[in-house]
Amino acid sequence: MSLDWLSSPCMQPDAASAEAARAHQLQLTKPPGSLGILEAAAVQLASLQRSEQPAVDCVWISVFAADHGVAAEGVSAFPQVVTGEMVRNFATGGAAISVLARNLDAKLDVVNLGTVNDPGDIPGVRRAVIAPSTANFCLEPAMSNAQLEAALAAGADSVSEAQKAGAQLFIGGEMGIANTTSAAALASALLDEPPSTLAGAGTGLNAAGIKHKVSVLERALALHAAVNTPLEQLRCLGGFEIAALVGAYVAAAQAGIPVLVDGFISTTAALAAVMIQPDVRPWLLFSHRSKEHGHAKLLSTLQAEPLIDLGLRLGEASGAAIAVPLLRLACALHNGMATFEQAGVSNVD
Amino acid sequence: MSLDWLSSPCMQPDAASAEAARAHQLQLTKPPGSLGILEAAAVQLASLQRSEQPAVDCVWISVFAADHGVAAEGVSAFPQVVTGEMVRNFATGGAAISVLARNLDAKLDVVNLGTVNDPGDIPGVRRAVIAPSTANFCLEPAMSNAQLEAALAAGADSVSEAQKAGAQLFIGGEMGIANTTSAAALASALLDEPPSTLAGAGTGLNAAGIKHKVSVLERALALHAAVNTPLEQLRCLGGFEIAALVGAYVAAAQAGIPVLVDGFISTTAALAAVMIQPDVRPWLLFSHRSKEHGHAKLLSTLQAEPLIDLGLRLGEASGAAIAVPLLRLACALHNGMATFEQAGVSNVD
Repeated sequence: MSLDWLSSPCMQPDAASAEAARAHQLQLTKPPGSLGILEAAAVQLASLQRSEQPAVDCVWISVFAADHGVAAEGVSAFPQVVTGEMVRNFATGGAAISVLARNLDAKLDVVNLGTVNDPGDIPGVRRAVIAPSTANFCLEPAMSNAQLEAALAAGADSVSEAQKAGAQLFIGGEMGIANTTSAAALASALLDEPPSTLAGAGTGLNAAGIKHKVSVLERALALHAAVNTPLEQLRCLGGFEIAALVGAYVAAAQAGIPVLVDGFISTTAALAAVMIQPDVRPWLLFSHRSKEHGHAKLLSTLQAEPLIDLGLRLGEASGAAIAVPLLRLACALHNGMATFEQAGVSNVD
Repeated sequence: MSLDWLSSPCMQPDAASAEAARAHQLQLTKPPGSLGILEAAAVQLASLQRSEQPAVDCVWISVFAADHGVAAEGVSAFPQVVTGEMVRNFATGGAAISVLARNLDAKLDVVNLGTVNDPGDIPGVRRAVIAPSTANFCLEPAMSNAQLEAALAAGADSVSEAQKAGAQLFIGGEMGIANTTSAAALASALLDEPPSTLAGAGTGLNAAGIKHKVSVLERALALHAAVNTPLEQLRCLGGFEIAALVGAYVAAAQAGIPVLVDGFISTTAALAAVMIQPDVRPWLLFSHRSKEHGHAKLLSTLQAEPLIDLGLRLGEASGAAIAVPLLRLACALHNGMATFEQAGVSNVD
């Protein structure tokens, strides 16, 4: 395995399709601009799909699960066994993302990259186990080179499956106790921001818990202060599932599949992907503004305008899944409304 | 006809169902509160539907269309003929709300309360014509007493049909050239606020157009300054479709059907309904924050937290329809997720 594939070119959005979609929007029986962000979303999808009739009927959701060595520092409100337990819950249909995928008629691809509490072989779960967990990045790099390569490749593998299935939209999600700590560490390093800017309550820390999390992050960032490329920062401070998301986002842009980004952890991965390969950016749509403290900073850095702001902070791709119907309706309106001429409706005076 | 029915009691939300729903949410396999506003929406629907399994599968959308005498003052970017033309477009499936209703598998009830450009009998349109338009409220009251009664009753009639059809959610919408002017006049009067606080671009006025609209509103408010009850303010400054929405909201609360309120004009009607009958308020869910200037003021007055903020400003129930999938997913998550015990997932440490 190598990392050379990361620098292969991404597909380019189609300016002519965007222009045609914008012109079409102006002919539909409504005041121009009155469907707000949904008009922009339809135009962006038209441009990415090189189509006058954008569609996100076929949605692929990959949830990457993995454990984190830094959980040993006591940074989560939930015990580490939950990661493996939730892998089973994803597969048996009881988790939020399972319910959402069913309701959206979306494919749910659950990928186990390594959990301390190993649920073993489960129908509906792809095993791509790298190790029971990353190393504790307060003490050493989270991943070896080989582990980073494997995790990135696992993300690309999911995109490859999504492409074979005809996915019109790729969504990545994550599960891993302590992974807001890993994401905050990575985001702090990528942006050269103090960890207090990026660290939040995760699954439910109180103020003292967040203070402790920040001190853990400060130790980790001091240890890896000399690391100064996004890939190396990802290796030293990331998690298997975060690296898989990075790999997936790059691979989706290379394959020409639009991506709908979930919350804080996914957006951290999106930032890393864009820093590694800037041509990824046009392929990213942003689903929601998470309640997790650091998300707003990441969104503004990426100049991202998410679709919804519902106080969500669950991860596992749930926020992105919840926003899918809005994209579907944006496409339905773009494709299905009558023009002024078709409907015999008078246009603006 | 009389207005006595407006003061008949509303149904009461069920506190026990709300409490049971809140307790159930805490058992689902997610950090408590991590589904944000969707958890609150599921709890509210459980309380209103007196059910452990809230559902909004059966959605009824009534769009009330009517013309406005104040259009003569040149307050809209579109010509008055558009109201009647859009009635036909609603029925033939080309309007935004037509596309949305089809995609949501919702019933679309189009009610023509009177348009200057009368489209006549059209399949799929209920004729409840009161007059070709209201009177110009810069010169005289917009409606007679009988017209107000008829418009309020038309809204209640739609709710009655919705109830017969088993609607689990009622949405009202409106169409009427110049009706942001009428709504701004009514809202200004109800709130005793200057019209500049409530007047916006409507279908697309520029700054000079908005300035003119404010001057028209100032004349109207001066003429009707002595009017000081919500019903009389509605009669003097409202429109047939706005009064129909008021009647519908009151009737829905009396029938025990939850309401999802659309944008600026619908929220003005909601405010009037709550001022006429305060027990209407618990039955109202708010769908979106419109880009129309005055909407934020109305939402804060009603202490409303809308689900989405997508820069919409189309009306015709479109914003509420776009938010329906979010309520459906809120219910699906509430009803379909596994509990910690069912899934064998460990709870918080």
